[in-house]
Amino acid sequence: MRADAKKNYDHLLAVARDLFTGEGADVSLRDVARQAGVGDGTLYRHFPTREALLEALLRSNFDAFGQRAADLEAWDDTGSALVTWLKEAVAMTHAYRGIIAPMVAAIADESSALHASCVTLRTAGTRLLKRAQAEGVARQDMDGNDLFALISALAWLADQPPLVPRADHLFEIISDAILRGG
Amino acid sequence: MRADAKKNYDHLLAVARDLFTGEGADVSLRDVARQAGVGDGTLYRHFPTREALLEALLRSNFDAFGQRAADLEAWDDTGSALVTWLKEAVAMTHAYRGIIAPMVAAIADESSALHASCVTLRTAGTRLLKRAQAEGVARQDMDGNDLFALISALAWLADQPPLVPRADHLFEIISDAILRGG
Repeated sequence: MRADAKKNYDHLLAVARDLFTGEGADVSLRDVARQAGVGDGTLYRHFPTREALLEALLRSNFDAFGQRAADLEAWDDTGSALVTWLKEAVAMTHAYRGIIAPMVAAIADESSALHASCVTLRTAGTRLLKRAQAEGVARQDMDGNDLFALISALAWLADQPPLVPRADHLFEIISDAILRGG
Repeated sequence: MRADAKKNYDHLLAVARDLFTGEGADVSLRDVARQAGVGDGTLYRHFPTREALLEALLRSNFDAFGQRAADLEAWDDTGSALVTWLKEAVAMTHAYRGIIAPMVAAIADESSALHASCVTLRTAGTRLLKRAQAEGVARQDMDGNDLFALISALAWLADQPPLVPRADHLFEIISDAILRGG
């Protein structure tokens, strides 16, 4: 990428991050371009779809999540490792309000620019779940898709203003359900 | 209500029910009026807000739910009674796709036309939950708001196409969490 193109790219990402975390993931791409002071053409050249922009925004979070899962795999307490990761995954998806429905759609759609990152997330969670299952501290009848779905549901709950005061308690109820053991 | 007004009212409700169950609760009120072949003014005279229309649509379901809860309170197995009611509540909210976010907003908003019906639903669930808690077969640290939130989350999950095949299993995981006992 040429230096000026790289500068545009970074600027667009910074503007998009502000808008998406402030107003939610359904902000229009046109608003991102306008706020960044570039034409629609420039935006679409860098990010042909909303998913491509979300993917670029979230890539560093997803990468950090892969690394975090690897660290948590070293914990002796496999149940705590799983719940800790779950909590951070919910917080990450919650920080980008409205991202969860596109993520759920993307995990089933191999053509989506977000697909690979969602699969990476699911794979990391699956590894932590399997460790906890092997020790008999997590439900045996769950897989990575169920975990992904429960993270989605918790992130959705945390997005509903009347439910915010109960979000931590609801997390506890659902994480207890996962840790019910064999 | 005069006979012709009643006829309009019933016709609008029937059209809205078809549209809402077919396309989801975010169908525009203008589309309802157009499809019913009446002017916007006629629609708004009967249903000044989207919530008023949803309330009219769901009133019979909510009433049936109050009655159903009363029947279930007679069951000896308080845990099964609670889970049976939960399952029917999720199915009802799922049948009106997209209704769940307005319901969650309405339960915290006394000025919403949907508020009273949502409170009725929560009250019915709370009674069943308390019976199960008194017998030590449901988590003691839950209340009717948590139950309402978990119904919402399950209805939302069932609305996400990629998660539909796992919806029953996810229901089981969450209802097991509720029935964890004291």
